[in-house]
Amino acid sequence: MSLLVVGSVAIDTLETPRGRAPDVLGGAATYFAVAASFFGPVQLVAVVGEDFPRAELDWFARRGIDLAGVEVRPGRSLRWTGRYHEDMNVRDTLSFEANVFEHFAPELPASYRTTPFVFLANIAPALQARVLDQVRGPRLVGADTMNLWIETTRADLDALLRRVPLLMINDEEARLLSGERNMVRAARRILAMGPASVMIKRGEYGVLYFSGESVFAVPAYPLEEVFDPTGAGDAFAGGVMGYLASSGDLSPAGMRRAIVYGSVLASFTVEAFSLERLRSLTREDIDRRYRQFISLTAFDVP
Amino acid sequence: MSLLVVGSVAIDTLETPRGRAPDVLGGAATYFAVAASFFGPVQLVAVVGEDFPRAELDWFARRGIDLAGVEVRPGRSLRWTGRYHEDMNVRDTLSFEANVFEHFAPELPASYRTTPFVFLANIAPALQARVLDQVRGPRLVGADTMNLWIETTRADLDALLRRVPLLMINDEEARLLSGERNMVRAARRILAMGPASVMIKRGEYGVLYFSGESVFAVPAYPLEEVFDPTGAGDAFAGGVMGYLASSGDLSPAGMRRAIVYGSVLASFTVEAFSLERLRSLTREDIDRRYRQFISLTAFDVP
Repeated sequence: MSLLVVGSVAIDTLETPRGRAPDVLGGAATYFAVAASFFGPVQLVAVVGEDFPRAELDWFARRGIDLAGVEVRPGRSLRWTGRYHEDMNVRDTLSFEANVFEHFAPELPASYRTTPFVFLANIAPALQARVLDQVRGPRLVGADTMNLWIETTRADLDALLRRVPLLMINDEEARLLSGERNMVRAARRILAMGPASVMIKRGEYGVLYFSGESVFAVPAYPLEEVFDPTGAGDAFAGGVMGYLASSGDLSPAGMRRAIVYGSVLASFTVEAFSLERLRSLTREDIDRRYRQFISLTAFDVP
Repeated sequence: MSLLVVGSVAIDTLETPRGRAPDVLGGAATYFAVAASFFGPVQLVAVVGEDFPRAELDWFARRGIDLAGVEVRPGRSLRWTGRYHEDMNVRDTLSFEANVFEHFAPELPASYRTTPFVFLANIAPALQARVLDQVRGPRLVGADTMNLWIETTRADLDALLRRVPLLMINDEEARLLSGERNMVRAARRILAMGPASVMIKRGEYGVLYFSGESVFAVPAYPLEEVFDPTGAGDAFAGGVMGYLASSGDLSPAGMRRAIVYGSVLASFTVEAFSLERLRSLTREDIDRRYRQFISLTAFDVP
């Protein structure tokens, strides 16, 4: 089944303790779409400037990412420069230029409006709602958000959450959104806001998934070297939604498999700067690491 | 098979965001011994003062904790006062009185010297070595340590580590001991110092276990309310060693089961102040939560 994502496609400049990568591919929807494309076709709704490399758009297309929803506008693309601390859980934004993204008003091609799996990557909740208004009878809607929207556009976000069955946010955002430090209580509060399920991303500590009374925890894959954490959460979401759209299986067991696939994609993403690791990644690599997640976590009943 | 633990038995005063508990049972060997006692008999080597409640020693004895190695000395027991922050991963020591513990020189009763499972809870490495000198042909020796010894008695600790097959420390200690931030690299360095295996305790994020090239990760049990994190790591170690001593199974699968049992004991311990939750705990409660760990972590191959 097909999958649609709306969000940012950007040009990043990244500094981590391992090095610097200027003017590389970035943006939440980029990481999402490329990660999801390992499982099936993806429809991308985004805006880029005239400076966005044609070669990257061609690469998207070769990966099965439909570009009918990507608008190329006069001006420069969204640009973000970030610097990670020695503790790569902490980063500073050195510069942010919205550029053509400033007036992004997502308009879905007619062929996208009946897509059954929809992901609203992190953009203003009003824009996320605008996309939801254009789709008809989706089977699953997932969304991400960030501190900025929780703090500045809370009414829009609250309205959106009532329409989003699956929320994927990080632990800091879960605390801010819920006002609870404890993750179990935070999740319970968030589920009361609308979503039937919430996936809480904890970086190097993995993911917690709450759905009704059920809880699932999966650790992050222990890596000897993390080059660049940028986009890990978006690649996670892409792996989750990509697997769900390809399997069509929204059962509890299917959701757990999707979360492990998401964790696999996140673990590869951080192994190199930007999306570099995903360029050479194969479906066989993904399935091999999925099996490594089993040996990482399996134990039996005495 | 029998299990011996040497370490501190103390009287604590605890302050957490949930309340205050003055003059309650504490000490690493206390948490360890009580947690391990759910699986079989435990030999406790420790020193307490005349102020130590007789009722608590009687409780230990009723739980199958052998007190032949507990010396009651003139003076006051080791006393620690600690205060936890709103983020209970952070705590301050408000006061520490070594008292009778200052001249602790563990002397094993003859009947303890052939005990096959030995745990050296967190005391000076020279004292841990003194205990190892007194045991003959143990089947498994586990040990804990802390920042203080890593920073002040490094040569003693290095000598000890060459004699300890199983090290259990927290992530901060692993970083300090190895000089590596990344946990995979930290573990690799620690395994090069002597231990065949290392369990890295990460509080609310669970445990990583490294043994040779194999890695096992188990999340902490997600609790809605953490009253008091004191002793969670010691109860974890008690659960691990208690289960290993009772099963005698040191296979990879047996070690994984032991780590889950340790995580179960840690999860109950933090549900109330001091050892209060363990007083009413039953083996049935433990086995029920073990099964909950399976539903928390299980996923299958697509």
